[in-house]
Amino acid sequence: MPKKDRLYLFKIGGKVIDKAEALESFLRGFAETRGPKILVHGGGLIAEQLATKLGIPSEMHEGRRITSKEMRDLVTMVYGGGINKSIVARLQALGTDAIGLTGADAGLIRSRKRHPQPVDFGYVGDVSSVRVDILEKILALGLTPVFAPLSFDEEILNTNADSIAGALAAGLSESFEVHMMYGFENPGVMRDLKDPDSLITHLDYEYYQTLLKEGVITAGMLPKLDACFKALKQGVESIVLADAQNCLRAAAQENYRGSRLTLGQ
Amino acid sequence: MPKKDRLYLFKIGGKVIDKAEALESFLRGFAETRGPKILVHGGGLIAEQLATKLGIPSEMHEGRRITSKEMRDLVTMVYGGGINKSIVARLQALGTDAIGLTGADAGLIRSRKRHPQPVDFGYVGDVSSVRVDILEKILALGLTPVFAPLSFDEEILNTNADSIAGALAAGLSESFEVHMMYGFENPGVMRDLKDPDSLITHLDYEYYQTLLKEGVITAGMLPKLDACFKALKQGVESIVLADAQNCLRAAAQENYRGSRLTLGQ
Repeated sequence: MPKKDRLYLFKIGGKVIDKAEALESFLRGFAETRGPKILVHGGGLIAEQLATKLGIPSEMHEGRRITSKEMRDLVTMVYGGGINKSIVARLQALGTDAIGLTGADAGLIRSRKRHPQPVDFGYVGDVSSVRVDILEKILALGLTPVFAPLSFDEEILNTNADSIAGALAAGLSESFEVHMMYGFENPGVMRDLKDPDSLITHLDYEYYQTLLKEGVITAGMLPKLDACFKALKQGVESIVLADAQNCLRAAAQENYRGSRLTLGQ
Repeated sequence: MPKKDRLYLFKIGGKVIDKAEALESFLRGFAETRGPKILVHGGGLIAEQLATKLGIPSEMHEGRRITSKEMRDLVTMVYGGGINKSIVARLQALGTDAIGLTGADAGLIRSRKRHPQPVDFGYVGDVSSVRVDILEKILALGLTPVFAPLSFDEEILNTNADSIAGALAAGLSESFEVHMMYGFENPGVMRDLKDPDSLITHLDYEYYQTLLKEGVITAGMLPKLDACFKALKQGVESIVLADAQNCLRAAAQENYRGSRLTLGQ
């Protein structure tokens, strides 16, 4: 089997999107990252702020957001248009041939609308499949896909950016050596969130199981790390959890501060 | 030279976009149109309504809109996200493999920001070039591009949808036999707007010159028809000006009511 090309898939969240300087700094670094690459961005606070201005009520259930139809239409504008196209335009100006996409475009990310029982979360989709063939052809044109956190199940659905990133990374790992760069609010996986020296720089599946038994992994980290090890099991080569700047350093194969996740040693 | 494939390029404006039923009816017909096709949509009233709600002032100069930075950011959301992605999702649900694009995506539609003298229209671009090679490759993937009226000159600029449609049609006419279907608020070109029987069903360049001399072409029609004949001179095969439903009939090679424009007889 011929050696696969390396592909970097970056995921950035609200922490980067909401700060103009942090976003600009990240995009400059991303534009300099060589080879095939993909960017998945989250939502940030802009949609919420706009919803407040427009008097669209914010519905929650046990701390989790419910996406009403009005809110879905708003995030389609904000995530799929405002944030996505601003990033694309900035990357184009920086010399990266970006193309902005949602899961509806070319039917790239199919999902299933979440079952209304026991809780109706509204217009929210859980990723079911990625149309890898078309995505690979788009990459083969030399384009850099930039994904908004929206998927498609006969209509547009609000979707978790982490899940989209994981599904894309797993889907592409048959043809590429995929390295996922997971922009994170903490320096990485920590033994103790209050102690910066407790950063775990390398975490394999065996060590992860040990940490789970020890109860070191907090409730908030559990779904993220589970999703990461699922992606690794599906063929993703490595995942770096770090802040956006350290993700860029890792992709440039420079020293970085963060956690590297792999399946085996 | 081998016979070129036929490509239909539709342009629809606010009259269709602003009415849910009219849009649905158009998209159903568009989804049934065979072969390679492109849709260019205008803006409609949604951006203006949202600007009013958000207290973004609407600036005008002699009846023409000025696009402030705030307004540009808003149309990027509304045109590039809200309208564009809703159309894409609906077309996907109807079986057309649509992909939503702005001029920034893949650098497809370059423009020049309009000179601030004598009047500063703000963040408005005049189309300068189309990246035909990439657009043809996207079409070759079997995808149907759906364009928002936004172009790119180091940043996103508000751009006239007619100009985008004309530039795309002209650019593609080297490789395709391009038929442009120009959705229109009137039944077509009329000798007398008040007399529905005065519809001109076929207009070639010579006849157009005669009508100009006779003063039959109104000021509002002049830039549109000039742009149409420019596109025909650049190789576009034919242009139909009609309402959206009659444009669909024309593309289906059924009887339609509208004006057909060609360069020669």
